[in-house]
Amino acid sequence: MKILVCNAGSTSLKFKLFDMPEELVLAEGKVERVGTDSAIFHYSGPGDYRIFQEGLSVPTYTEGIQLFLDQILDPDRGLLSDLAELERIGFKTVLSRDHYGIHELTPEVLQGMEDYMVVAPAHNKPYLEAIRQFQKLTPDAMLVGAFETAFHQTIPPERRIYGIPWEWYEKYGIQRLGYHGASHSYVAETLTELYGSTGKAISCHLGGSGSLCAINDGKSVDTSFGISLQVGVIQSNRCGDIDPFIVPFLQKEGLSLDEVLDGLTKKGGLLGISGVSNDMRDVQEAADAGNERAKLAIDIFCNGIVRHIGAYFAELGGLDHLVFTGGIGEHGIRIREAVCNQLRHMGVWLDPVRNENCDGGNVVISQEDSPVMVHVIPANEELGVARKTYSYSL
Amino acid sequence: MKILVCNAGSTSLKFKLFDMPEELVLAEGKVERVGTDSAIFHYSGPGDYRIFQEGLSVPTYTEGIQLFLDQILDPDRGLLSDLAELERIGFKTVLSRDHYGIHELTPEVLQGMEDYMVVAPAHNKPYLEAIRQFQKLTPDAMLVGAFETAFHQTIPPERRIYGIPWEWYEKYGIQRLGYHGASHSYVAETLTELYGSTGKAISCHLGGSGSLCAINDGKSVDTSFGISLQVGVIQSNRCGDIDPFIVPFLQKEGLSLDEVLDGLTKKGGLLGISGVSNDMRDVQEAADAGNERAKLAIDIFCNGIVRHIGAYFAELGGLDHLVFTGGIGEHGIRIREAVCNQLRHMGVWLDPVRNENCDGGNVVISQEDSPVMVHVIPANEELGVARKTYSYSL
Repeated sequence: MKILVCNAGSTSLKFKLFDMPEELVLAEGKVERVGTDSAIFHYSGPGDYRIFQEGLSVPTYTEGIQLFLDQILDPDRGLLSDLAELERIGFKTVLSRDHYGIHELTPEVLQGMEDYMVVAPAHNKPYLEAIRQFQKLTPDAMLVGAFETAFHQTIPPERRIYGIPWEWYEKYGIQRLGYHGASHSYVAETLTELYGSTGKAISCHLGGSGSLCAINDGKSVDTSFGISLQVGVIQSNRCGDIDPFIVPFLQKEGLSLDEVLDGLTKKGGLLGISGVSNDMRDVQEAADAGNERAKLAIDIFCNGIVRHIGAYFAELGGLDHLVFTGGIGEHGIRIREAVCNQLRHMGVWLDPVRNENCDGGNVVISQEDSPVMVHVIPANEELGVARKTYSYSL
Repeated sequence: MKILVCNAGSTSLKFKLFDMPEELVLAEGKVERVGTDSAIFHYSGPGDYRIFQEGLSVPTYTEGIQLFLDQILDPDRGLLSDLAELERIGFKTVLSRDHYGIHELTPEVLQGMEDYMVVAPAHNKPYLEAIRQFQKLTPDAMLVGAFETAFHQTIPPERRIYGIPWEWYEKYGIQRLGYHGASHSYVAETLTELYGSTGKAISCHLGGSGSLCAINDGKSVDTSFGISLQVGVIQSNRCGDIDPFIVPFLQKEGLSLDEVLDGLTKKGGLLGISGVSNDMRDVQEAADAGNERAKLAIDIFCNGIVRHIGAYFAELGGLDHLVFTGGIGEHGIRIREAVCNQLRHMGVWLDPVRNENCDGGNVVISQEDSPVMVHVIPANEELGVARKTYSYSL
């Protein structure tokens, strides 16, 4: 079965075309800087076929989608002769009110995405645009949303319910939902493939956005995201855990609600603290050059990870596997080192040589006799979505 | 030196009259239900002199203060012949912008309390009223605010600074401030007296309000309160850690900011979840009778404590002492049991018999060979304030 997976970010679009259940990747593409006249398009198809284009005009997601479809429909490439061959399209959707699992994208589910727009504005808007475009282009395909919340449905109520008036939970569904489910579940599946079980594991997905997940016997039992994706550890631009009373305090100081939200979601995180960049590589470079706020941003980032690992270590009653994934998780040698070196008393014994030499693939970076195994597992969220889209109501 | 310590709550007033530096308590009193015609007054003076009065009319803090002063000035009791003998009055004040330590209560410091009213409304209002009354009654006494934030000034920046735009930190002073300083510092002082050093310790102050504090070598290095007293573990009526995006979400759903704040500060916590009561004893009773939401409220309360202990265990690099204090900390046998039993893998080995039999005084409740010593240390916040008031600029 040909399954296309679509991953829409606030200014990017990623696609992977799979043949399932063989898990063969037939083609993949990425459009960056959607909404500009300087968009970038990467594509790789069968054989060594590669495309890299810059300076493209991609005003909306519609044009971005077309860039990819034109490639997979190109008669010279032989992938698809008609879009109708796409039986299912899986979307790495984020949040829909009352729909937290794997769902066919019915009008009701899309309405739930509209309802929660304020909680996940950077995600629901582009997905809705992309989904509506595919509804037009592929009217016969089944569109499936593998919501990022799905993996976290197993979090027990004492870690999911907030200390708020009960009616807010019942009426508005306010609770810890958790995200990055495609990534954390892929980590759990990979550990299970490798070791027969996840045991007690903590998955650290650290990228432009970041979250941690406590996993017990393959199931999510806690996570650092809440109802929104803004909390937990600090992220590129997002605030991470803060005192919620900062919001009314700033409003009473005269800031508008939108100014406050803008600060917390776009001008906070690594960018807000460092004043340098929202990209960890730039922040690290500035810190190395002596910039104190850049150093502080890295320290806060690492301390947040340590705090969450400690919390999950307590909740899990021990730890077998500590996993780093996502851009910073996979490439942040010094971040992994800083975090793990604070956790020696918990049985996390990093091997510095292994930590410095893990390029690609699933790698163990702890010492041979470390009580906790430490891993780098490259993220493969699209495969996670493809698996869920394929198995949905089959 | 005669020092009066004043502890003002949202509907209560507590006093202790000390002779310092001998730390002798000469008299103590408590007024409950301030603002009603059904106030209660407890007083105990020298010898066995005791007063208990109910159904009093105490419309404001002014009348409550007078109840206590009338007793200590009573010529038959021989404590004070004139208020002028009170050289210093110490207040267990909470929060003043830009004044986070021990401060004489100058107009500037009081203005700082006004400025942060929105962050600590239940505390700053009664304190300002009480302080202004003492300014009139004892114009020659030095009024000292032992701010609850003082002990937490040693928290390092990576645990204090939030992932928010830097200008909010610089311009508004938004940061993790922490409270319950009088209680946590008293725990640190007590451990130091008993063992020569706190080593790595976690102090759990659990009462109507609750916070945890990580202590290393006598100094606070992290705490669960933030800029406000609403966060961390859930409390009687307060929400504890929540996703801050709940605030704008509810505002966009049509709730006013004041309704949201009211829910988070007065209708949340144990009360909000259980729907039964804000008092742990009532919630426990309901849970024992089979009330599911009451059980859930207790589970959420305990899980929050476990999460924070884990986080501090990671940050501290180990743990020597785990201390319970405050009303629930001192009397909540089953809360201590539920928390400690989840921490065995961290070296917390509770002795169930000791845990059930610790009435008053500083008691060790862990097993003889427990890697972590577990203690119950009754709170004595007023003595903490008296010490700080006495030593202020002496």
